[in-house]
Amino acid sequence: MDTAYEPTDRTTPNRYRERARYDRETVHRILDEALICHLGYISAGRPVVLPTTHARLGETLYLHGSTGSGPMLAAKAGEGLPVCVTVTLIDALVLARSALHHSLAYRSAVVVGDARLVEDPAEKLQALHCLLDHVASGRAADCRTPNARELAMTGVLALDLVEVSAKVRDGGVADDPEDLGLPYWAGTVPLSVTAGTPVPADDLNPEILVPSYLKSYSRYSNR
Amino acid sequence: MDTAYEPTDRTTPNRYRERARYDRETVHRILDEALICHLGYISAGRPVVLPTTHARLGETLYLHGSTGSGPMLAAKAGEGLPVCVTVTLIDALVLARSALHHSLAYRSAVVVGDARLVEDPAEKLQALHCLLDHVASGRAADCRTPNARELAMTGVLALDLVEVSAKVRDGGVADDPEDLGLPYWAGTVPLSVTAGTPVPADDLNPEILVPSYLKSYSRYSNR
Repeated sequence: MDTAYEPTDRTTPNRYRERARYDRETVHRILDEALICHLGYISAGRPVVLPTTHARLGETLYLHGSTGSGPMLAAKAGEGLPVCVTVTLIDALVLARSALHHSLAYRSAVVVGDARLVEDPAEKLQALHCLLDHVASGRAADCRTPNARELAMTGVLALDLVEVSAKVRDGGVADDPEDLGLPYWAGTVPLSVTAGTPVPADDLNPEILVPSYLKSYSRYSNR
Repeated sequence: MDTAYEPTDRTTPNRYRERARYDRETVHRILDEALICHLGYISAGRPVVLPTTHARLGETLYLHGSTGSGPMLAAKAGEGLPVCVTVTLIDALVLARSALHHSLAYRSAVVVGDARLVEDPAEKLQALHCLLDHVASGRAADCRTPNARELAMTGVLALDLVEVSAKVRDGGVADDPEDLGLPYWAGTVPLSVTAGTPVPADDLNPEILVPSYLKSYSRYSNR
């Protein structure tokens, strides 16, 4: 398999092309680190964007939903639902001396294609396993697996990673030379998602301790 | 002005209607706290979702872009660009005993409508001011304002807050009664966006100190 995705018209940005990345490793890392994605589809001729959870298994992206949700109903009705799935990680504020050069340091990935509804129970179960482990690695084996009724209530979309691109804006401030002497602070403010102490459910048996995969929870393990 | 947005077919969720919120205060807080939004629009018959920065001024949402970007070109070509702007804040992981009841605690807002390209220079300047202050309150007055050339390079979309809804999933674990005795940990893991120490640009005059609005930077000031 090629180490990079093939750029297409739809995955070539109009602007800041030097920020585009197509290598699988960069794309996979962004998809794996992001807790949620934003799923775009068309409903009654209008764009709709919904947040949902996702998980990557090899070169397939699975998206979670309930069977009664808009995109699941739309996917069921058709041959495949045209979607755009976007994932964005914000790494820092970038404050320049000039208003124009203010920016964010970020990493994003965009996957376009036709999503299919997962109907095979075995594939659906595997996808739900991945979706749980995406949220907290190890969790899928440490909870009660869905029964047939619950499986039927859950919708999963699958999207092949074929038309994919990432965009990475890293580095620091890029002011114009004539602005360097201006009396304004310039620099970056790093941002990260941090986890607090796990809070047990009120009705949890106090003998059940916080599992290891939640003790030092971080989205950044594979950065 | 009403204290709430009027629900429409497009802003009534198919699922979990009890999580829907239409009051302006809830919606405004979510829009104001979120650093970025995901902008959905249709290009060549396909959905496109792009991350960008936004800022709310009263009942108008401004979206930032460069004049050469896809949505700006699309808005320029038309009478108003049909968009869906979605903002999502993740507050916690919710881990239930059963796979099915795993969830995230989140707050999201969805704004649908036809975005217009801001062409009036005074409105554009005001919108850029808001966009900077949205990233760091006080920054717009503490940097060099854009000149005419820079203003022309920047694109701003405006979207009236008319068809708007929020969705709030808070609270804890909701396991089925028959699962409460299962030997799995259940509870929540709070998540937040935290800022590190500001990093001055390499070429910053060391006499310019970190401004107060960056010293204890947080997205949660208005929670």
